[in-house]
Amino acid sequence: MEVNKGKGEPGLQNPAKQMDKPVHLHAVESMLPKAVKRRVHALKRLQVQCGNIEAKFYEEVHELERKYAALYRPFYDKRRDFITGTVEPTDAECEWNSDKDEEEELSEQIKKKIVIDPAKKEDATPMEDPKGIPDFWLTIFRNADMLTDMIQEHDEPILKHLKDIQVKFSEPGQPMVSIDTLNEKVNPKYDSKSSHLVLLFQSFTLEFHFEPNSYFNNAVLTKVYKMKSEPDSSEPFSFEGPEIVDCGGCVIDWHKGKDVTVKTIKKKQKHKGRGTVRTVTKQVSNPSFFNFFNPVKAPPDGGEMDEDSELAFDFEIGHFFRERIIPRAVLYFTGEAMEDDESEQDEEEDEDDDDDDDEEGDFDPRA
Amino acid sequence: MEVNKGKGEPGLQNPAKQMDKPVHLHAVESMLPKAVKRRVHALKRLQVQCGNIEAKFYEEVHELERKYAALYRPFYDKRRDFITGTVEPTDAECEWNSDKDEEEELSEQIKKKIVIDPAKKEDATPMEDPKGIPDFWLTIFRNADMLTDMIQEHDEPILKHLKDIQVKFSEPGQPMVSIDTLNEKVNPKYDSKSSHLVLLFQSFTLEFHFEPNSYFNNAVLTKVYKMKSEPDSSEPFSFEGPEIVDCGGCVIDWHKGKDVTVKTIKKKQKHKGRGTVRTVTKQVSNPSFFNFFNPVKAPPDGGEMDEDSELAFDFEIGHFFRERIIPRAVLYFTGEAMEDDESEQDEEEDEDDDDDDDEEGDFDPRA
Repeated sequence: MEVNKGKGEPGLQNPAKQMDKPVHLHAVESMLPKAVKRRVHALKRLQVQCGNIEAKFYEEVHELERKYAALYRPFYDKRRDFITGTVEPTDAECEWNSDKDEEEELSEQIKKKIVIDPAKKEDATPMEDPKGIPDFWLTIFRNADMLTDMIQEHDEPILKHLKDIQVKFSEPGQPMVSIDTLNEKVNPKYDSKSSHLVLLFQSFTLEFHFEPNSYFNNAVLTKVYKMKSEPDSSEPFSFEGPEIVDCGGCVIDWHKGKDVTVKTIKKKQKHKGRGTVRTVTKQVSNPSFFNFFNPVKAPPDGGEMDEDSELAFDFEIGHFFRERIIPRAVLYFTGEAMEDDESEQDEEEDEDDDDDDDEEGDFDPRA
Repeated sequence: MEVNKGKGEPGLQNPAKQMDKPVHLHAVESMLPKAVKRRVHALKRLQVQCGNIEAKFYEEVHELERKYAALYRPFYDKRRDFITGTVEPTDAECEWNSDKDEEEELSEQIKKKIVIDPAKKEDATPMEDPKGIPDFWLTIFRNADMLTDMIQEHDEPILKHLKDIQVKFSEPGQPMVSIDTLNEKVNPKYDSKSSHLVLLFQSFTLEFHFEPNSYFNNAVLTKVYKMKSEPDSSEPFSFEGPEIVDCGGCVIDWHKGKDVTVKTIKKKQKHKGRGTVRTVTKQVSNPSFFNFFNPVKAPPDGGEMDEDSELAFDFEIGHFFRERIIPRAVLYFTGEAMEDDESEQDEEEDEDDDDDDDEEGDFDPRA
C-alpha cells in the first residue's frame, strides 16, 4: 500500500498536519478554536470516566482469574502428583495418540547421533524405572529461553528438588498491602474531584514448592507481584490495564555453607608504597536463580522505570511464570511450547560456555 | 546475569541436554524411559483438559466485554454527539485542568514556527466557530501510524464525513456464521473422543458511521472479524486465547464515478511486428482505505497464514480499531496516545511524498 502522509497540502483545517511529530502533538489542542477545544475537553472528561469503567472491567477479569484458578487446581494437583511420583496415572489417564511415525523417525535420528559419540552412550541409557518424572521443572528451566539465562550450574542440583510451581491470586477487594504503603509507592496526586480516592491493587504470588533438601529449610519459596489496576488520577490516560508495579521475595533459610547467592572471593591488594601484596577475603553476591527471591526494590516515587532495568526483567519473569510456565509446564518440558517461539528458531545457541568469568578465585557452595 | 546453558556436563539424566535445540526437542519424549513417557502422556491429557477450561474462561471474558460495551455505550454516544455538534457540552462537562504552563509554552513554540513560514499563516487562523470537532476521525487516521499508511489523499475528503466508529460483539453462545461454514474454514479433524464437537466462534463487528455524503449511499460500512475461541482438537496445544481467523467486509454503494478503490489507466501497447502504438483503457484497483471493506479471503483450509501477509495486517488493523482507536479516540486526536508509542519516537517522518508513483496516467475519481 502506498504511504501518503498528506504533508504539504495547503488549505486543510487540521492543525496537526502543520507540526512535526511527535514533539508538538500536544499543541494540536492549543491550536484549536476555543469552542472546539472546549468540546475536546468534554471528550477528555468522558475518557476519564471510561477509564474508571475499564478499571472495573479488569477487576472482574481478576475475579474470573481467581474463579478459574480454582477450576485448574485439581488438574495441577494431579500434575504435581504424577511428576513427584506420589500417584501413578492409570492406563486410561495416559492414553495419548502420538504421531508414531514422527516419533520413531526422530528416535532413529537421536540413536544415530548417540552412536557417533560413544562417550555419551552412558547418558543415553536412562534408568528404566525412575520415580515420577525426574528433573521435570529443572528441564523446563533449561528449555525456556527466558529462564535458562537465569540458572547457573550450582542452581541445578537445587532445582532438582522443585516439586511444583503455583500461582495464587489476591482476595477480591482486599489489597495485599496497606493503603498507606501503596500511596507512598504510587504517589497519586489525589484530585479532590475524583471519585476514586482508594487505589485498587491486585497481586499474585508465585509459590515454588520444594521437597526436603540439603540446601535450605523452606518448603515453599514465594515471590509476590503487586499490580496497579486502576488509573492514577494524576495520569488518567496512562492506564492500560493491570500493571506490575512492585514485587517482594522471601528469606531463604539456607543451610550453612549452602547459600549459592553469595560467594567468598579472595582479592590480592598491592601496597602502593611498599609493594607488598596481601590477600583479602570478602563475601560478594553470586549469580544464581535464587536471587529471584531477593529482588531490587521498585523506585519509591512510583516514577518511570527503565525498561531495560533488572526490575523490569524481573516483572517479565514473574509474568512469564504466571502466564506461560505454570499453565503449560508439560509443553515446556517436551519442548512443544518453544516451537512457536520465534527467537528460539532464529538464534543458534553455539556460544561457548562463559560461566567461568570470575577470575579472582571462587568458592563452591556445594563443597 | 551469566548465561549457563549447562552444556557438556556428563552424568546428568536429562535427555534434553544431549540434543541440539530446537530441531530435536520433540525427541525428549522418545528418549524417556517408558514409564516416564507414560506419565508425560498423562500430563498432556491434563493439559488438553486445562485448555478446554481455558476456552470457557475466554468465553466468560467475551461475556464481560459485551457487558462493558453496554456500559461504555452512553459515553461513546455522548462523544459522537459532541464530535458531530449535535449536542453542545455544558460548562461542567468541559471542565478540564490542563497543564496551563505547558500548553502556553507549546503554543508559543507553534506561533514561532508559523511566523517563520508566512505561507502557512492562513491555515493557522482557523474558523472561530466550526460545528462540533471538525475532522475528528480524519485527524485520528492521520495521527495513528498504523492507519496513516492506509489512507490516500483521495480518501481524506470522504473520511471527513465519518461520524463514529463502533464495535459490536457477537451474541452469547450464538456463532455468527453457520457451523457448516465454520467447519470448512477451520477444518477441525473431529476427534470422536473429544467432548468438544462444536467449535465456539466469537466475532466483533466494526461499524463506520457516515453522515450523508456525495461518495456513497451507505450510512454504515461494516467489517466483521471472526475469532476462534476454543482449542482445535487436531492441535490442542496451539490455543492461546481467541484469535482472529477470518473477516468479511461489505459492499459499498458508490455514486457514479466516485469509487476511489478503482482507477482507469491508459496503457500504450506497441505492436511488435508493425511498430504501431495503440492506447488501451482498463480499470484496475486503486490504493485506498476503502479497500478495507473488501478484504482478501482467509485460506479456506485454515492453514498456516504468513505473518507478513495482507490478511495478517488486516487482522492487526481490526484489532487496533477495537482495542485502541475506539476506546481512546480523543487521545489519538490530541496525539497523547502516540506518546507511548515507541516506534513513533524513533522514526523521523521526513520521507518525501511518494503518492505519485503511477506513471501510466491516472483517473481522479473526485473530478
